[in-house]
Amino acid sequence: MTHKDIAQLLTTAIEQQKFDTAIGQVHDLRPIDTADILALIPPKLSWQLLDRLPNRATVFSYLEAEDQVALAYQFPRANLARLVGDMPSDERTDLYKRLDQSQRDALLPALAQAEREDIRLLSAYAEGTAGALMTSDYATLKAQMTVAQALAALRLEAPDAETIYHAYVIDSERQLIGVISLRSLILASPEQIIGDIMLTSVVASNVNEDQEDVAKKVARYDLIALPIIDDSGALVGIVTHDDAMDVASDEATDDFHKSGGVSSLVGSFKDTSIRILYRKRVFWLVFLVFGNLISGVGIAHFEEVIAANLVLVFFLPLLVDSGGNAGSQSATLMVRALATGEVVMRDWFSLLGREALVALLLGITMAAAISVIGYVRGDAVVSLVLALSMVSVVMIGCVIGMSLPFVLNKLGFDPASASAPLITSVCDASGVAIYLFIASKFLPL
Amino acid sequence: MTHKDIAQLLTTAIEQQKFDTAIGQVHDLRPIDTADILALIPPKLSWQLLDRLPNRATVFSYLEAEDQVALAYQFPRANLARLVGDMPSDERTDLYKRLDQSQRDALLPALAQAEREDIRLLSAYAEGTAGALMTSDYATLKAQMTVAQALAALRLEAPDAETIYHAYVIDSERQLIGVISLRSLILASPEQIIGDIMLTSVVASNVNEDQEDVAKKVARYDLIALPIIDDSGALVGIVTHDDAMDVASDEATDDFHKSGGVSSLVGSFKDTSIRILYRKRVFWLVFLVFGNLISGVGIAHFEEVIAANLVLVFFLPLLVDSGGNAGSQSATLMVRALATGEVVMRDWFSLLGREALVALLLGITMAAAISVIGYVRGDAVVSLVLALSMVSVVMIGCVIGMSLPFVLNKLGFDPASASAPLITSVCDASGVAIYLFIASKFLPL
Repeated sequence: MTHKDIAQLLTTAIEQQKFDTAIGQVHDLRPIDTADILALIPPKLSWQLLDRLPNRATVFSYLEAEDQVALAYQFPRANLARLVGDMPSDERTDLYKRLDQSQRDALLPALAQAEREDIRLLSAYAEGTAGALMTSDYATLKAQMTVAQALAALRLEAPDAETIYHAYVIDSERQLIGVISLRSLILASPEQIIGDIMLTSVVASNVNEDQEDVAKKVARYDLIALPIIDDSGALVGIVTHDDAMDVASDEATDDFHKSGGVSSLVGSFKDTSIRILYRKRVFWLVFLVFGNLISGVGIAHFEEVIAANLVLVFFLPLLVDSGGNAGSQSATLMVRALATGEVVMRDWFSLLGREALVALLLGITMAAAISVIGYVRGDAVVSLVLALSMVSVVMIGCVIGMSLPFVLNKLGFDPASASAPLITSVCDASGVAIYLFIASKFLPL
Repeated sequence: MTHKDIAQLLTTAIEQQKFDTAIGQVHDLRPIDTADILALIPPKLSWQLLDRLPNRATVFSYLEAEDQVALAYQFPRANLARLVGDMPSDERTDLYKRLDQSQRDALLPALAQAEREDIRLLSAYAEGTAGALMTSDYATLKAQMTVAQALAALRLEAPDAETIYHAYVIDSERQLIGVISLRSLILASPEQIIGDIMLTSVVASNVNEDQEDVAKKVARYDLIALPIIDDSGALVGIVTHDDAMDVASDEATDDFHKSGGVSSLVGSFKDTSIRILYRKRVFWLVFLVFGNLISGVGIAHFEEVIAANLVLVFFLPLLVDSGGNAGSQSATLMVRALATGEVVMRDWFSLLGREALVALLLGITMAAAISVIGYVRGDAVVSLVLALSMVSVVMIGCVIGMSLPFVLNKLGFDPASASAPLITSVCDASGVAIYLFIASKFLPL
């Protein structure tokens, strides 16, 4: 049965108030699948089923942001408070931030004091930081505990903690002093002391660190969760591996979009409105229209040589595009290597030499191809002009393409803004100038 | 101390055969950091330290492929066998595949029978499948065990299993019939039966499934590990969350490179040779040189209208680029949405309408900008020609850009091959034809 079919069945069951049938339908499903199905049912009906599911908080957390908000408006206040109270703290805070003021005011008094405080703390961190990503549902231990005591403590914490597979050892000031895995606990003898067997060199992130760096750390050290500390070294949260994986995927999407000259899209591409798509794309397109006028100025400057040798126009798009294509390749390689951390800013100069050499070889290959065609359509001089132009255009294109991400980074922009369209336009302008300049030296006016 | 400084210290210590000092230096480090440092020391020296580290197999697994092979040639055969025997089975198989035949023949007899068999089985799976990615170091339980027996069994399996946080329940035919988390085991009472508390709707992948789909499943269901089954439903391995995260990152890099018209690079970008970089880039560049000749043919066809109206050349790069830019945006959005699974093949038609509408709005905006400049530089007729051309070029560009990934996919190519350079060239050719066709209708010959 597809999700659509199940949604159909559920809709009927809810309309007839047959909730046991409905619950039975989704009983064996993973929470994310249940969430996908609920999203296909009108909120007016689906909240009634959701409210009756034993894993309602988990299912609700998997819903898309807009579906969560739509459902929140259907729930009676007491039921909403129960649901929200059971949600993981990071998801709860995200939902809270999306509600309007009147919803927030209605919800807050219904929550427990600890949950209110938790929302207040977590919602204070800026978007895109470790603080905004982390959850405060983690398991802690004390260094003086025995392994038996630690296991008993974890048993108590398990229902609320996002993971108990790594437990964090803190002192009386909540300073993070160690970490221990449940695997080590299981393997240790019950009377051993946590302080003696914990790992003291803990990989952690500061609460203000960029979420991209957090995801990289989780990936590098193969962590199940990364502890997050404040400036004083006190443990304030953890980021779990699944959230880190989502961040890595979102950041890759973001870079990918930028590379194509699209501003960051938030949320699902499929559901994005025409207005938003227009807004995210129009800036670069219009900006580049004006950027391309520079190519036009180059053409205007060499109008006479063009008028006298119309064959030049035949090869114009080809030559100009080749520089842009080679430059896009260089930029693509560099932007991704910067994003994965394989290349850092100070590598620019050492990579420049290799890039120039590769560009020279590529330029010579392409010059060989074009000069044959030039000879057929024009003559030996045209052929020479084309070959010289091609090598120059490709080399300049590659140097621009590989350098622009670094320059943008220096200026405080994301290197991924060195998009193919931007590189193409910059290379076009220089390509036109180089081509027509070389032509004006060899061809009659 | 930087990694370079530590490597310096270690080199001296090894040369003086002071291994206790050397081991002390890396004792508190994470395995991946130790591996990064060892990579900075000549293999002739570094193997001596590595061989003495208690976590040598883990550290070795974190080394880059070429460093592993270089070290393998330094190790005495018995020591290498001990090292390889302790490696996780997926890493061990990867190393084995990289050794030359004489190395393999030397290594195999030194390994235990079970390890030889394991290598034989794992190395049989095609690259890029779940089978090539999975490890055979997983923990299994029987349905009739009590929780107490299960915990005792996991304690025995823990030293060898990559994870014991999820244990897989199999029957006497090794069929995968359930999964249970260590968290549930810890929370259950000791006399409960595994068969009663395990989860029976297990998310699993077939051993021949594409590694990209495996990574997507791990991400979707927030798994610590995904069980891999063969065609008969028998459990043959698991893929852990950290390996899935690496695959997702590699696939994103691959798509990113393709989007810039670069063929897949294997291994570190920084260490890639000039020869490889040339080879990975030259195909598309030369291919597109010939592709761009089509634009030239368009220009040749309309040579007379150009000769009579040289102002057309001034706007040629601009108009032609605008179509390519808009098309690149469309392709970028589509390629990434296809890669993340947000959009599937059958969505093409329903997305086409939205795309056309967005393109129309973008085209009108850009036409407004260009027609003003056209009026200033030319006259009202030129202005009209430019505006009409711009709207057409942008709309055609967007439709090509959004459709090409689908078409390529239908033809059996990766949709990410719809790179910016390819889109630019296709849009250029159609842009030249549209522009000059419209011009020929309105302007004097």
